[in-house]
Amino acid sequence: MSEYRIYQVKDAIAYVRAVEKLGDEVTLQGEEIGDGNLNQVFRVCSPGESHGFIVKQALPYIRCIGESWPLTRDRARIEAQILLRHGEVCPAHTVAVRHYDPALSVMLLEDLSDHRVWRQALLEDQIFPEAAAQLGRYLARVHYHSSAFHLDYQAQQAAMADFANPELMAITEAVIFVDPFRYHERNNVEPLIRHEAEQLWADAELKIKVARLKHDFRTKGEALLHGDLHTGSVMVAPGKLKVIDAEFGGYGPMGFDVGVMFANLLLNFCSQPGRHSTITGQRVQQLRLEEIRALWGSFRDEFVALAAHSADPALAEPGYVQALLRQVWRDALGYAGCEMIRRTIGIAHVADLDGIDDPIRRAACQRQALALGSRLIMEAEQLNGTALDLLLQQAIAGG
Amino acid sequence: MSEYRIYQVKDAIAYVRAVEKLGDEVTLQGEEIGDGNLNQVFRVCSPGESHGFIVKQALPYIRCIGESWPLTRDRARIEAQILLRHGEVCPAHTVAVRHYDPALSVMLLEDLSDHRVWRQALLEDQIFPEAAAQLGRYLARVHYHSSAFHLDYQAQQAAMADFANPELMAITEAVIFVDPFRYHERNNVEPLIRHEAEQLWADAELKIKVARLKHDFRTKGEALLHGDLHTGSVMVAPGKLKVIDAEFGGYGPMGFDVGVMFANLLLNFCSQPGRHSTITGQRVQQLRLEEIRALWGSFRDEFVALAAHSADPALAEPGYVQALLRQVWRDALGYAGCEMIRRTIGIAHVADLDGIDDPIRRAACQRQALALGSRLIMEAEQLNGTALDLLLQQAIAGG
Repeated sequence: MSEYRIYQVKDAIAYVRAVEKLGDEVTLQGEEIGDGNLNQVFRVCSPGESHGFIVKQALPYIRCIGESWPLTRDRARIEAQILLRHGEVCPAHTVAVRHYDPALSVMLLEDLSDHRVWRQALLEDQIFPEAAAQLGRYLARVHYHSSAFHLDYQAQQAAMADFANPELMAITEAVIFVDPFRYHERNNVEPLIRHEAEQLWADAELKIKVARLKHDFRTKGEALLHGDLHTGSVMVAPGKLKVIDAEFGGYGPMGFDVGVMFANLLLNFCSQPGRHSTITGQRVQQLRLEEIRALWGSFRDEFVALAAHSADPALAEPGYVQALLRQVWRDALGYAGCEMIRRTIGIAHVADLDGIDDPIRRAACQRQALALGSRLIMEAEQLNGTALDLLLQQAIAGG
Repeated sequence: MSEYRIYQVKDAIAYVRAVEKLGDEVTLQGEEIGDGNLNQVFRVCSPGESHGFIVKQALPYIRCIGESWPLTRDRARIEAQILLRHGEVCPAHTVAVRHYDPALSVMLLEDLSDHRVWRQALLEDQIFPEAAAQLGRYLARVHYHSSAFHLDYQAQQAAMADFANPELMAITEAVIFVDPFRYHERNNVEPLIRHEAEQLWADAELKIKVARLKHDFRTKGEALLHGDLHTGSVMVAPGKLKVIDAEFGGYGPMGFDVGVMFANLLLNFCSQPGRHSTITGQRVQQLRLEEIRALWGSFRDEFVALAAHSADPALAEPGYVQALLRQVWRDALGYAGCEMIRRTIGIAHVADLDGIDDPIRRAACQRQALALGSRLIMEAEQLNGTALDLLLQQAIAGG
């Protein structure tokens, strides 16, 4: 085992050469392509080739901040393990891990250069008609196979111990459930919506609901979550979809992954009045609404189909999985609301809203994101699929 | 470290002598007093003295069955750890662990010979007026200090890993949530109530609710539970109460401990028409009802008082702890229902019901336990404290 060192391009190339057993006759070149907040990412390939390898290395601190914010390198182990586990049950939609080196906190991943980041595609109004349904199937498969439907008590407890991820999930707790709902210096609130943020911080009923969602996030270990499933963690290509970046994963409520994805589609939805004419914007909003329906529909159908084969005599009771999925839906709406709010006034924003140049239009979109997020949290118990549809149709008409 | 061996009386005496540093001038004698299903228990004291020490050793199999059902000795470590942890935050009501030897799976406990088992006291109509409130305070203190209100993410995750108890909690799953709700050879159903058991096994709605409770038991890691808090795990003396036997403990829903205790008081409640004249039986039933009120009232008040000091900025939101406790109450009713049913038709019964000699009267009491248990499961969402009171008052009048 080699000792940990921070990789340069040449190290990434040597790592690829060693793992892939490429002789000296193969020329390789590399570049650092990381645009995330946490890690370094290299792309290594032969000159002139469009396809190569990805080398991802965890640094002992948060990349975008520096050595002043140390962060466990063990996240690389957790991410590699989660991707491998998810890849076993959903290889079609999980980025392939070709090698993992624990001492160097480095992993070799398949190159998805023929894919693009879904968020970017959505921002360019590029349609991937199968993406939402593929994502629903992915979530159903990775959640189901790590749940009590599939694992007996001991296997699930062992998985919960293997995938314990306290350091990164504590960050999720802080940045999604704590900071955005009160004054905190880490928050990033634009001056034009300061008033709405302060109203939200004073909303005691809302904060009680958020406390419940936070508490459930920590204590409801239903399935091995991706943990950060926004549209920037999804790579798409015609007919294809791969999920990447699982370092925030661990056991938690299934509704969290579903809700975070709902929220990111809804943040794009809310950004449309700032990006397009009314007619075009409304048409794109309809697409987002259809994607949310397709995502939930395929998640539900696939999960129910899998649960029909559960070996657990109690959970296999006809009707139970449907009852559970109603709760997952309610949880998802609550988590979607938290994610929408934190991406609007918390530390980490999304390009969908922040990319709107005109500050007045941007603020109007941000206000809609805060209002819709609050409603999802407050009304999660009442909003079934039809009611959510209606709520979003009203938002489209009103925008 | 010594190698594991099954203790004889002389080993228990030598262990006490070594741990307590008692010289040869102190004469000690011992006897095996275990009446539980799992372990051996010795009482060691000087001749003529009423107070000594308890030595408890885990065997590598289930004591009452034998070597054909092996069971991890690691349960002794888990039990000792849980008792020590609970003892730190509620020394008044947790049996004291004086020493633990991991190699021998043996622990030295304080002798509670001046106490008696609460179940036995209840069966003899002996009243300990403070017991229920003491138990409520105990539960609030041990649950609170292991919960997200008191521990940050990393500390709680570390505790969840330390206290993972898959082997014994899988037994709980099977004997409480699975077997009693379907035909299983492990069940113990008396012929006179066979019909009622079969009706219950055919009740699809009930079984969906039980599936939810089972699923929550495994996935809802709210607090470090005792895990088997029936009236036989509680020792009482005038003004004093100590909880023993924590080997089934681990992280789970707080309502489980509360509900199991509710159920054991209610099983005694249901047994009264089989034990006493109508007037006397009704008077004793009122006592059980008051104990349930006192248990919940002190649990709630103590938990709310503790939560006022929570360092968690989200969970400390005024009103959240009350909302959480409403859910704990609902969970508790559901778990109480499961416990009542499993103690009536599952593998392990209680003396309260089984000790009724007349088979016709016994069957009538068992039927009431099944009916009340089913109602608690089915109506947990609707029954607030007043409604439960009313339901039990009706049961008293009807008995």
